[in-house]
Amino acid sequence: MTNIYEQDLDRNPANHIPLSPLPLIERSASVFPNRPSVIHGSRRYTWFETWSRARKLGSALSSRGLGKGDTVAVMLPNIPEMFECHFGIPMTGAVINALNTRLDATTIAFILNHGEANVLITDREFSPTISVALSELDREITVIDVDDPEYIGDGKRLGNQTYEELLAEGEPFYEGRDPDDEWDAISLNYTSGTTGNPKGVVYSHRGAYLGAVGNPLTWSMPQNPTYLWTLPMFHCNGWTFPWVLAALTGTSVCLRNVTAANIFGAIAEEGVTHFCGAPVVLGLVINAEEAERRAFDHSVEIMTAAAPPPPAVLERIESMGFRVTHVYGLTETYGPSTICAWHPEWDALEPVARAKVKSRQGVRYPIAEGLMVADPNTLEPVPQDGDTMGEVFFRGNLVMKGYLKNPTATEEAFRGGWFHSGDLGVWHPDGYIELRDRSKDIIISGGENISTIEVEGVIFGHPKVLEAAVVARPDEKWGETPCAFVTLKPGESATADEIIQYCRDNLAHFKIPRTVVFTDLPKTSTGKIQKFKLRDQAAAL
Amino acid sequence: MTNIYEQDLDRNPANHIPLSPLPLIERSASVFPNRPSVIHGSRRYTWFETWSRARKLGSALSSRGLGKGDTVAVMLPNIPEMFECHFGIPMTGAVINALNTRLDATTIAFILNHGEANVLITDREFSPTISVALSELDREITVIDVDDPEYIGDGKRLGNQTYEELLAEGEPFYEGRDPDDEWDAISLNYTSGTTGNPKGVVYSHRGAYLGAVGNPLTWSMPQNPTYLWTLPMFHCNGWTFPWVLAALTGTSVCLRNVTAANIFGAIAEEGVTHFCGAPVVLGLVINAEEAERRAFDHSVEIMTAAAPPPPAVLERIESMGFRVTHVYGLTETYGPSTICAWHPEWDALEPVARAKVKSRQGVRYPIAEGLMVADPNTLEPVPQDGDTMGEVFFRGNLVMKGYLKNPTATEEAFRGGWFHSGDLGVWHPDGYIELRDRSKDIIISGGENISTIEVEGVIFGHPKVLEAAVVARPDEKWGETPCAFVTLKPGESATADEIIQYCRDNLAHFKIPRTVVFTDLPKTSTGKIQKFKLRDQAAAL
Repeated sequence: MTNIYEQDLDRNPANHIPLSPLPLIERSASVFPNRPSVIHGSRRYTWFETWSRARKLGSALSSRGLGKGDTVAVMLPNIPEMFECHFGIPMTGAVINALNTRLDATTIAFILNHGEANVLITDREFSPTISVALSELDREITVIDVDDPEYIGDGKRLGNQTYEELLAEGEPFYEGRDPDDEWDAISLNYTSGTTGNPKGVVYSHRGAYLGAVGNPLTWSMPQNPTYLWTLPMFHCNGWTFPWVLAALTGTSVCLRNVTAANIFGAIAEEGVTHFCGAPVVLGLVINAEEAERRAFDHSVEIMTAAAPPPPAVLERIESMGFRVTHVYGLTETYGPSTICAWHPEWDALEPVARAKVKSRQGVRYPIAEGLMVADPNTLEPVPQDGDTMGEVFFRGNLVMKGYLKNPTATEEAFRGGWFHSGDLGVWHPDGYIELRDRSKDIIISGGENISTIEVEGVIFGHPKVLEAAVVARPDEKWGETPCAFVTLKPGESATADEIIQYCRDNLAHFKIPRTVVFTDLPKTSTGKIQKFKLRDQAAAL
Repeated sequence: MTNIYEQDLDRNPANHIPLSPLPLIERSASVFPNRPSVIHGSRRYTWFETWSRARKLGSALSSRGLGKGDTVAVMLPNIPEMFECHFGIPMTGAVINALNTRLDATTIAFILNHGEANVLITDREFSPTISVALSELDREITVIDVDDPEYIGDGKRLGNQTYEELLAEGEPFYEGRDPDDEWDAISLNYTSGTTGNPKGVVYSHRGAYLGAVGNPLTWSMPQNPTYLWTLPMFHCNGWTFPWVLAALTGTSVCLRNVTAANIFGAIAEEGVTHFCGAPVVLGLVINAEEAERRAFDHSVEIMTAAAPPPPAVLERIESMGFRVTHVYGLTETYGPSTICAWHPEWDALEPVARAKVKSRQGVRYPIAEGLMVADPNTLEPVPQDGDTMGEVFFRGNLVMKGYLKNPTATEEAFRGGWFHSGDLGVWHPDGYIELRDRSKDIIISGGENISTIEVEGVIFGHPKVLEAAVVARPDEKWGETPCAFVTLKPGESATADEIIQYCRDNLAHFKIPRTVVFTDLPKTSTGKIQKFKLRDQAAAL
C-alpha cells in the first residue's frame, strides 16, 4: 500500500536532474567568466574560454559521430587540453579514457584495444611510445595531436589533425548532452596492476559529481582556490579534481615538469593554495636547494596519499608553511576515500607521535558511506584493537561501477556487497584504519602474519638506507620468512648483519628478515615497486 | 543496443547507496565522538551523545510502530531535542514535520490534520497554543512533552510522557533504517502563505543530503565550524543546516531567545564562526547597546536571506568583524538556492555601490542546476538587461518533491518542467538576478509594471519612516495606482505630501504613490506583511 508521501510526488524535470559535473563548468563560466581557469606557462585561459574550448571539442567530436557508449582516449600531461577533455568528451555522452603517460607501448595498445577507443588525443612528447602502440593496434583509431607551444622537446605529430584544428571545427555554443542517467559512465581508468593485464575501472557521472562536491567538503577547500597540478590528471582523473575546480571556480596551475623550482615558482607567483601529490613531491619540496626556493606568505595545503613522510620530514615541511593532509584510496574508489581526519588535540603531540597518528589512513570520507577492516572470507569485521589484521573494504557512492568487460573480476571485487580493496590493515580503537600490506604481499611465517610495510618502515629508519622492499621467501620450516631488498644511499656501504641487527632492536623476533639483498629495486612505470619480481628473486636464492 | 558501458556494470550494494543525511551523523559520532555537537546553556552534548539520543528517539518511535510513510510533528524552539529530531525521526523511515512555533492554534490544527501526524513532540512553552490546537484536531495523536531545564517560563505538560521518558524506552544502539530510495520523503514543511491554507512542501533524503554537502561548498564553510542557531530549525529545516553540521562535525550553539546579548555572548564564549539569519538578526547585532556587546578576535560569517541591509548597515556590521553573504530561496527550494557570489573586484566599490551589488539575489548554487528569469506563461527567458521583469524559475536537485496531497498545486508549480517561484525579478547583464516583487503584488499602472519593492525601498529611505508597504489601488483611469501604507518612527510625524514629494525626487513619475496611509502594518505570525489585507483597505479607500 502506498503512503501519502508516495502519491503525486514523483521525480520530474523540475526537481530531479542526473547528478553530473557538467553543469558545474557551465556555472563557473557563467558566474565568473573572466576568472582564470587554467594557467600553463604563458598560456592563460578564463573560465569562459575553457568552457568555450570544451564545447568546441565536444561539438567537433559529436560531429564526427562520437557519443554515448564511445571511448575517447587521451595521452596528455597536465596541460589545458587535458583539463578541457574532462568536460568536452563527457559532454558528448562519450567516456574519457586518460592513459598513464608512463606506460609502455604494448600496455597502451592493450588498453586502446580493450577500451575500444575511437579517438586518441595525444601529446607530441609521447609520440615515440604512441607510434609503436598504434602499430600494435588491431582497430581503426582517429589520432589527434596536441602540439603544446610550451613544449619545445622532441616528438612528432602522428595524426592528420591537431587539437586546435579539431576545435576550429566545433561550435563554441554547442550545448552538449546531459547524461540520460547519472549512472552513465563518464570515465575509464586502467589500474596499473603490478601483474597481469590492467583492468578498466569505470566511473559514473554520479560518482564524479559526488567526488567534485565531496573532496572540498572533506578537505575544507573554499571557493576560488588556486590549485597546482602535480598529481597527474590521468591518475583517477586527478582524484576528480578537474571537476572539483569547476565546482569551486578554482584556478588550475599546470606543470609539464614537476620540479622543486616549478612548485615554488607557482606558489610564489600564482599564489597556489592547494595541491595533491605523492610523497615523492613532498620530497622534492623538502630537498629543494636554496636557489630553487621562493618565499611565500600564505599557508599551502597538501593532500598526499600512500605512505606519508616520516616525522622529521613532516615537521620540516610543516615549518616551511605547508599543511599536510593524509588520505587513502584506490582507482576503484575515485582516488581518496579515507582521510586521517585531524583532531586538534593531536597538535600537542611531540613530532614522532604526531607523525605516527598522521601516518594512519584514517576514516571514511563523509561522502563514502561504508569502510571496514574485516575477514576477507567471512566479511566479519575485525576487532578495533590496532592489532588484528584484516582486509580493507569500502561500500557506497565513491565506489566504481565495475571493471569494463570483466564481469568475473567485477563480481569478485564486489562479493558480499562490499568492495574488496586487496589492502590489509588494522583497525585502531578510535576507528582509524592503518594499512599493513597488500593481501598478496603479506608474509605468513610460522602461522603469524608479518606486515611487509611494518618491516620496511623499520629498515627505512636505518640511516644508510635509501629504499627497501620486503617480500616472502619460501622456507621449509616456517612456510615463509621475510627477505629484504635494500638500496643504500649513494656512497654508503653496509652488511646484511648490520641491517638485521638494526631490525632486531626494533621488531618482534619473527618479523626480522632472515635474508638481506643489496640491490636496485624494480619498479613499474608509475614508480610502484614490482614485488612479484622480488618474490621470484627471493625464491631463487 | 546496449554499449560496452551498459554491460555488467550495474548498481549494487557495494557501489550505490541512497543519498541521505543519516550516514553523516554516524560518521561524526564515530570519528569525533567527544567533540561538542550541541550546546544549550548549561547543557552540552558530544556527537556520540547526540547520536545516541537520536537513536534512542528513533528506537522508541519505531517500537511504537512509527515508520515509513508516517509523520512526526515537532513544535520546538532551537534546542538540542529539535536537532536530535532531525535525525531520530527520519532514522525510523518517518517524516519530520517541524511546525512554525509562531503559528496560531487553528493553523497548527490544520497542519496536524493535513499532514496526518501520529505523534507531536512539543515544548512546554507552546502549550497555550498547542492545547487549543489539540482540541480542534479530528484525529488521534500521541503528545510528547519537552520540558527543557533551560526554560523557566510558563506552560504545562500536555501529554502522558516526556521526551526524556520516551528516550529512556529506546535503544542507544538502534540501527535505524536507511531510505529504500533516496527519493523517499525526509521532511514536511508548510509554507506560511499569506493567503489560503498552508501547503505542505515535501523534501527527499536526496535533496537533504545535497543541501548538507552543497551549503558548505557554496559558503566555503570548513570542517568543524561553530554554528549559532538564530534561524529557526522549523524554517526549511534550518535551511538544511542540522544536516550540514553532521557533514562537517560542527558544533551547534542553541539560543531559545535571540537577543543581541545572547548573540555576542555565544560569539565571545563559544567562538561562533557562522550563523544564518534574517535581516532582523543583523539589526539586533548593529543596534546592540554597549553593555550587550562583547569583544571577539575572529571573523564571523553571516548568511542572510530576504532583503539585505542597506549600505550604511552593511558597512557598519562588516566593520564590526562580520562578513555578510546574501542568499535567496524558498521553502520549495530547501531554503537558499541562489547566492550573490562575490567578485573580489567588488571590494573596491564605494559602500553604496557595494551594497547595491550585494543586494542582488545572485546566481544559482553550484548544486542547483537551473535558474532563470522568464515569461510566466511562455517560460521564454527575459533578456539579461537588468530591466525586463519576469518570474524567477528553478529546476534541479534542490527543488522539493512537491506539495503533499495537493497534485493540482504541484502540477501548477512545476508546469513546463520548471518550478514557478511566484517571485518577480530582473536579470542583469552579468547573469545575476534581482527580485522585484511577488507576482501577485506587482502593480500595473497604465500598462506599466511597478515593483512595490522598488517604491518601498525609496520610502524606507525617508528619515522619519520605520516601515512601509505599497500595494495596488484600483483606478478607473490607470487600472491601478500605487498606494503606500507607512508606519513612522516613534515620536515622528509627517504628511502624505511630504512622503509623495520625497518619492518624486527619487522615482519615475508613474511609480509615485497617489495615496499614503499612516498606520501599523498587519503581519503574519512569521512577520510577513499581509498585503492582501492592505489591498482590501486600499480598494475601500
